[in-house]
Amino acid sequence: MTYATYRATMAGVNDLLCTVNLMSWDARTVMPHGGTTARGLQIATVTSLARDIATGDAMARALDGAETELASAPPHDPRHAELAQARQGIATLQRIPAALIHQVAELKTTAHAAWVAARQANDFATYAPLLTRMLHMQRQVSDAIGGSHPYDPLLGTFEPGMTLATLRPIYTTLKDALIPLIARATAAPAPRTDFLARSYPVPAQKAFALSIAERMGYDMSRGRMDDTVHPFEISFTRDDVRITSRFRETWLPGGMFALWHEAGHGMYEQGVSPDHSRSIFTTDLVNLYAVGGASFGLHESQSRLWENRVGRSHAFWTLHFPELQRHFPSQLADVTATEFWRSVNQIRPSLIRVEADEVTYDLHIILRSEIEADLMTGTLSVADLPAVWATGMRDYLGLEVPDDTQGVLQDVHWSQFYVGSFPTYTLGNIMASQFFAAALTQAPIAQGLQQGHYAPLKAWLTDHIYHHGRRYTPGETLLRVTGSGLNPSPYLADLTAKVDAVLA
Amino acid sequence: MTYATYRATMAGVNDLLCTVNLMSWDARTVMPHGGTTARGLQIATVTSLARDIATGDAMARALDGAETELASAPPHDPRHAELAQARQGIATLQRIPAALIHQVAELKTTAHAAWVAARQANDFATYAPLLTRMLHMQRQVSDAIGGSHPYDPLLGTFEPGMTLATLRPIYTTLKDALIPLIARATAAPAPRTDFLARSYPVPAQKAFALSIAERMGYDMSRGRMDDTVHPFEISFTRDDVRITSRFRETWLPGGMFALWHEAGHGMYEQGVSPDHSRSIFTTDLVNLYAVGGASFGLHESQSRLWENRVGRSHAFWTLHFPELQRHFPSQLADVTATEFWRSVNQIRPSLIRVEADEVTYDLHIILRSEIEADLMTGTLSVADLPAVWATGMRDYLGLEVPDDTQGVLQDVHWSQFYVGSFPTYTLGNIMASQFFAAALTQAPIAQGLQQGHYAPLKAWLTDHIYHHGRRYTPGETLLRVTGSGLNPSPYLADLTAKVDAVLA
Repeated sequence: MTYATYRATMAGVNDLLCTVNLMSWDARTVMPHGGTTARGLQIATVTSLARDIATGDAMARALDGAETELASAPPHDPRHAELAQARQGIATLQRIPAALIHQVAELKTTAHAAWVAARQANDFATYAPLLTRMLHMQRQVSDAIGGSHPYDPLLGTFEPGMTLATLRPIYTTLKDALIPLIARATAAPAPRTDFLARSYPVPAQKAFALSIAERMGYDMSRGRMDDTVHPFEISFTRDDVRITSRFRETWLPGGMFALWHEAGHGMYEQGVSPDHSRSIFTTDLVNLYAVGGASFGLHESQSRLWENRVGRSHAFWTLHFPELQRHFPSQLADVTATEFWRSVNQIRPSLIRVEADEVTYDLHIILRSEIEADLMTGTLSVADLPAVWATGMRDYLGLEVPDDTQGVLQDVHWSQFYVGSFPTYTLGNIMASQFFAAALTQAPIAQGLQQGHYAPLKAWLTDHIYHHGRRYTPGETLLRVTGSGLNPSPYLADLTAKVDAVLA
Repeated sequence: MTYATYRATMAGVNDLLCTVNLMSWDARTVMPHGGTTARGLQIATVTSLARDIATGDAMARALDGAETELASAPPHDPRHAELAQARQGIATLQRIPAALIHQVAELKTTAHAAWVAARQANDFATYAPLLTRMLHMQRQVSDAIGGSHPYDPLLGTFEPGMTLATLRPIYTTLKDALIPLIARATAAPAPRTDFLARSYPVPAQKAFALSIAERMGYDMSRGRMDDTVHPFEISFTRDDVRITSRFRETWLPGGMFALWHEAGHGMYEQGVSPDHSRSIFTTDLVNLYAVGGASFGLHESQSRLWENRVGRSHAFWTLHFPELQRHFPSQLADVTATEFWRSVNQIRPSLIRVEADEVTYDLHIILRSEIEADLMTGTLSVADLPAVWATGMRDYLGLEVPDDTQGVLQDVHWSQFYVGSFPTYTLGNIMASQFFAAALTQAPIAQGLQQGHYAPLKAWLTDHIYHHGRRYTPGETLLRVTGSGLNPSPYLADLTAKVDAVLA
């Protein structure tokens, strides 16, 4: 048994998890409705096999053999860290009962369909028993992994090292800053947005948005773009990284910003070093998910960076609005670049998280995080969810929730066993600003953004983040790249500057 | 260990092979070019795992346990046959070296790309070394399984029970009948076909063809249709059975007949009993392929039946030509139903198998079968293939082959390790006529075909063929359904009647 044997065994695990990703992509984009049940069984079979191989005797022997082989290698040999990371992932995975993993995997496909139906029918009551069952299973996972608060093990599966205790003061800082910022923005006169809802034929929207995404650096020869109700990114290798978007003829910003967001995720996956293909550095053993990004939060930092820090900047629209006008000359004849930039940065409390602006967005996340933590401790029951949701939306955003479809049923996450993942959106926002600030200290990057040359920024992100896959934790990455730990200040500075600018 | 344990183990094997089908569908329809190499590795990993589980200790113990449990069950209990079939499949699979299976699976994806490139560039010489290597691997498979002629084990993997010795007299019968039939047809004045190459917008072609396929019985809620260069059908469960077609604006019959052909395959898979889902009756253990059809030949009999016996009949176009005219009123204003029927039954020797008419088609197959048998014995070398191809096309069809793209490079099969599968097309043609003749003895079926009611025919095929999946061999199925063994007479009668009718 040698290091090569270990790599081959881990490659098999990664292959299986990439296969699950493909089954998932297919189910969410092109699968006929009839295929749902069988697909759930198939995903469960392959996921369980990946789990069995990762936690099995052959893997343990291969790891032992590899460590023996590397005993004489120098301490800085990166293979030491690789084996340690594999051991740690396997140890956590082994704590979760195999039967539970199988049940979760099988339920994901059917639960997704149940959530879609409940949301469409605005019928929380019918969905509640299934949700209760899934939350119970999530709590079982949490108990199996173990932590000081039952929310921590789940949070930690998505954001290694993160805990509720770390999160809470950050949330307080954000709330204290954001609520007055929102008040200031909403007190000011609303920008012109009438033109966003004119008729914009979808093919031209796609052509424009995709041409920008390719200039940002998303490689279509190793990717593809499809239409789905809920945009997402998923990869089956660094050389096949797919994104989806949702274009609507009468809402211009929706499709393009979703596309750049997903392209940001996609560039991360496409930029992982080929050396990491089929290795632990592209394998999330705890979530049994093939992915090159180091955490959900780090992944989100890259999508947000391209979507918001780049795509909603004034420089961006000064450069690209004339192109957009060439695609839609009559629709945008009476609009200036600055008016357009203001329109896609309108700050206004809204009911739906995925449609929220940058400044109100994190309050949606904070509400969900608090609810999830209470669901895991058991201080909140599923029956009370709609009422708690309504109270939260009133307190944080001053809005009345008209129905559950626009309330507690709006997000897919709980039907996908993603309790603990919401905080990673806010962590992504925070880290995006930290990385962006670090990148902007490089003159060619800052100049490139003024000229529409995105290659320097992408090259910097590739070198500092994409390339390494999951080799470093989010905390290590922040420290390596920015010299600091998690720090919401650059993010709050960006949001404040944005509000100042759009209100000017 | 019980029968239930055996079923669960076999279900896992079936799930994995369905997953491979999905990876293959994806690679052939939507995958970006960059994904090719990783996909090959992933398919190899999952295929090898399926093989390992099928031939492993747990399966052997489960089979033993199931047999013990069923020892007291009555002899006609269908589970006895099920276990015997599983044992037989596993025994054959065990003869093929695991490493060879892995190599074949991995090579399939890249070899497909190499073949596409060679065909495009008309470059047989560059492709020849890879082909030589693949043929050598096929011969290794043949030797591992063992048979009286080296072609037989391969033929038998696609058509259980079939041998070259059985095939040869059938080919002789066909050649003796077809060559004069073709001569008679080509000596007659050609039918009018000018209108087939007018401009037919593809969306309307699809709408017409798909509406007919659905009336035939292809269920779109458990299927979908995509566009590919080479039409095919593939399933991931009876409830997700996908077909592809290729529509061209200036060649009307191409897309619709390919669609009905693939819909015929698709109805077979959709019609397999749900009881057989995830069982040996939907698992081809020797080819490591999840499929409900009993053999390649039986599958082809169903596609040919719907495409040719139904779709190219005079009754069919008498009924449906007015509908087609409503889709294309100006293009077909000067055409009658009978003229249209004649045009899609034109008999004329041609270079490309997949574009060949019914009467010349089998000569393409006979040529390929003879070549394959000689490649396996070693009496023919790869270097001599183009010359042998040219001679065969001259002898059988009186045609000169202008280049390898229109000659030996035209078919995908050898790059997919399908040596031995060509005869199943002709066997399918023969069986289609046998089944169709048996079906027509039922008055409601015969009447239905005159009225455009395809439900009686589909119900009969479902009861007699589709429903059973792989439970009966092709020979058993023929005997059960037609009361006779393989017999080319009904097929030759159909072809002769067709020639008589179109020349009348």
